[in-house]
Amino acid sequence: MDRWKDYLEDNGSDYLDELCDFLRIPSISSLPEHADDVRRAADWVADRLKVAGIEAVQVLPTDGHPVVYGQWLHAPGGPTILIYGHFDTQPVDPIDLWSHPPFEPVIKDNRIYARGASDDKGNMLAPILAVEAMLKSRGKLPVNVKFFFEGQEEIGSPDLPDFISSQRELLACDLILSADGGQWEKDQPALVIGRRGLCALQIDLKSAAGDVHSGTYGGTFLNPIHALARLIDSMRSSDGQILVDGFYDDVVELSDAARDQIAQVPYDEKEYMRKLGLKQLCGEPGYSTYERAWIRPTLDVNGIWGGFQGEGIKTVIPSEAHAKITCRLVPDQKPDKIVELISAHIEKHIPAGTTAAVNKLAGTADPYVIPFDHPGNQAAHATLKELYGKEPYITRMGGTIPVSGIFLQFLKAHMVNFAFGLNDENIHAPDEFYRIGSFKRSLEAYGMMLERLGS
Amino acid sequence: MDRWKDYLEDNGSDYLDELCDFLRIPSISSLPEHADDVRRAADWVADRLKVAGIEAVQVLPTDGHPVVYGQWLHAPGGPTILIYGHFDTQPVDPIDLWSHPPFEPVIKDNRIYARGASDDKGNMLAPILAVEAMLKSRGKLPVNVKFFFEGQEEIGSPDLPDFISSQRELLACDLILSADGGQWEKDQPALVIGRRGLCALQIDLKSAAGDVHSGTYGGTFLNPIHALARLIDSMRSSDGQILVDGFYDDVVELSDAARDQIAQVPYDEKEYMRKLGLKQLCGEPGYSTYERAWIRPTLDVNGIWGGFQGEGIKTVIPSEAHAKITCRLVPDQKPDKIVELISAHIEKHIPAGTTAAVNKLAGTADPYVIPFDHPGNQAAHATLKELYGKEPYITRMGGTIPVSGIFLQFLKAHMVNFAFGLNDENIHAPDEFYRIGSFKRSLEAYGMMLERLGS
Repeated sequence: MDRWKDYLEDNGSDYLDELCDFLRIPSISSLPEHADDVRRAADWVADRLKVAGIEAVQVLPTDGHPVVYGQWLHAPGGPTILIYGHFDTQPVDPIDLWSHPPFEPVIKDNRIYARGASDDKGNMLAPILAVEAMLKSRGKLPVNVKFFFEGQEEIGSPDLPDFISSQRELLACDLILSADGGQWEKDQPALVIGRRGLCALQIDLKSAAGDVHSGTYGGTFLNPIHALARLIDSMRSSDGQILVDGFYDDVVELSDAARDQIAQVPYDEKEYMRKLGLKQLCGEPGYSTYERAWIRPTLDVNGIWGGFQGEGIKTVIPSEAHAKITCRLVPDQKPDKIVELISAHIEKHIPAGTTAAVNKLAGTADPYVIPFDHPGNQAAHATLKELYGKEPYITRMGGTIPVSGIFLQFLKAHMVNFAFGLNDENIHAPDEFYRIGSFKRSLEAYGMMLERLGS
Repeated sequence: MDRWKDYLEDNGSDYLDELCDFLRIPSISSLPEHADDVRRAADWVADRLKVAGIEAVQVLPTDGHPVVYGQWLHAPGGPTILIYGHFDTQPVDPIDLWSHPPFEPVIKDNRIYARGASDDKGNMLAPILAVEAMLKSRGKLPVNVKFFFEGQEEIGSPDLPDFISSQRELLACDLILSADGGQWEKDQPALVIGRRGLCALQIDLKSAAGDVHSGTYGGTFLNPIHALARLIDSMRSSDGQILVDGFYDDVVELSDAARDQIAQVPYDEKEYMRKLGLKQLCGEPGYSTYERAWIRPTLDVNGIWGGFQGEGIKTVIPSEAHAKITCRLVPDQKPDKIVELISAHIEKHIPAGTTAAVNKLAGTADPYVIPFDHPGNQAAHATLKELYGKEPYITRMGGTIPVSGIFLQFLKAHMVNFAFGLNDENIHAPDEFYRIGSFKRSLEAYGMMLERLGS
């Protein structure tokens, strides 16, 4: 039964070499000059799927970077599991903070350093290798498997909704496993059962027709930076409650049981503050830090600018001031409705003499929850418990994986986080790395998870 | 007696050619690559003073751009008049909005177009030519005259305080005439009897040690942009009163007579708003627009920035947010004290969990007033009335000429605005021009003024 584990054991060092080959492709999706590299990474994945014994492998076009599809559907009556991940990476800036060239993998201290090592090449390669081990060692899989890897996750998957919507039959499945994500700690698994959604907008304030001299005109009309400061401040109370009318109307309060699950996750406030370099936290009264980060909505200005930013002084009253805002959303808030409520708030509170243009920005995602007792969750729970010898924490995440909502909408299938990255692995930052221990564990984990789903 | 007027008349077209030569020197003081051009302009001015018959002409070094000095001191018992102007210019950006190359003067519609035409080469050349006309036509001047021209006015005259303080004897005088400034309208003179002062500071707010993901951490600590918005909004009421404790303590309320002088200056609110492209004005209750601009202090954020300013979205909580602030000050506010009061306000109001660094910026100036009945003022008043055939308006200006305060401090002499630029001449902007009519009038004006000061 466990011959696939022996196979994994025997081929472990080859797999590391292969991961290094994969990491050498600089598949940065945000930079047009790397579009060919993203395509090369797609081809590499497709070839690797074929070697593993996966069928109907195709690199499929979208309006942007391509996707890779493959399948093994010879488990009649068994469930169909779609495995998701991405082969594109973040850019490498600031390049001078890297200890090694980011696309020349270095193995050191049982870690593999390279851009994309943890996010997501190391993670997404694991299910391919696990499936290969099963197919090579016993010729079949315990479930039907579809692989779906994308090359535009790091730029927000702009073409995925159209692609998934138009390929519902090809991608039809019972459950999705995400090989993009992570666990709680090296020795502590976690089951992620919710993620916040997202909406985004930009405010552009104008007052005078052009920049004017603050000596000549200062004091006679409203500086748009002052108007913007007032407007921003009108949106939040000092303790972090959002003061936009209707903002909380659709928020579903969590049950005591669900809040209790969150309270079970150990929290060390000193350590949390130390990690962020803060002396004080601040957030909505009546909620714990994890609740504030996971199950409460937010409104954050991510960027603000207006007037003179250079050295020294410039005595100008600028004609414009700007802010970019995103909100993290929780069930059942709707991104479009929240943008409308904020627009209405701006219209109501904009200081006289100033005009505002409010524009919704791309980057929308519905909040996502998977019921705790969902069979996929239960299988993951049991697998993780067996693998780590520990009860997984039941967590949520404050961030967004838009694809989970897209899958749910078009495929009517839930997604379970089944990946093994850890928080400290510098993803999106210099010196990204992946633990070789996590990589090895993830191969076994996928084997065990597919067995359990097939049983 | 008026042979100098004939001399001016006879040489008028040569003077225009000379002004064009002067304007061809790209003496941009803010750009290091033009330092030699500023020096060339200084040499040009020195040579021109010598040709005019001025003595002891010297180009004197400072720690930055040089100054030019010259004198004619053969009117024993007469007052000594120091004439001030500057031979440096603003940069030319945005260069593509110019109709002609900015340093190739073009004469069109009785205007001379070039960078520096109005500010200040056209204005500062006039007193040299007027003095030349007097010296060539009758061999003497009605008063003692010192010329003092600088090459760093457009960068805030950083080396002038040290220079003037160390050259008190050389520059000692009874009155200063500023050949940098202007009149009210083409046919309407004005006497400027006050200018606001200035202080400047930068606020740098910090919260977390680095930028963090707004999904992972949003809602658990205070975003420094929100803290900055709150802080800025705490400094001003919605109608423009400054809420910084003690800010108005040293403000001397104007007498009814002085306010009445301001009320005499015609004001067209519709035209004022049209010029600025505004639908509404806003300022301190109980004061007119000119009072708000001339005799009331202000606090303006000239620049704000923090976080992401690019296209699209970046879900970041930035670790820093910044603002640049200047205040326009009126008698008897002191720049350093106002910076201290604002620092104390920030310390008192800074939201918990955020730290602020407050740094004073260079650009300090005391507010400046010259008594309405000052003899220099009375001479200018009578000269302008004779020249224009109209009573001058008694005005103040919201902006700052720092050198007037420096002269008063070190030379104990007041400065009278005696220049002929007009508001619409695009100074500091593309297509700067100077009216040839103003240039001609200014030559005569300086002759008449010196006569009056000597009588």
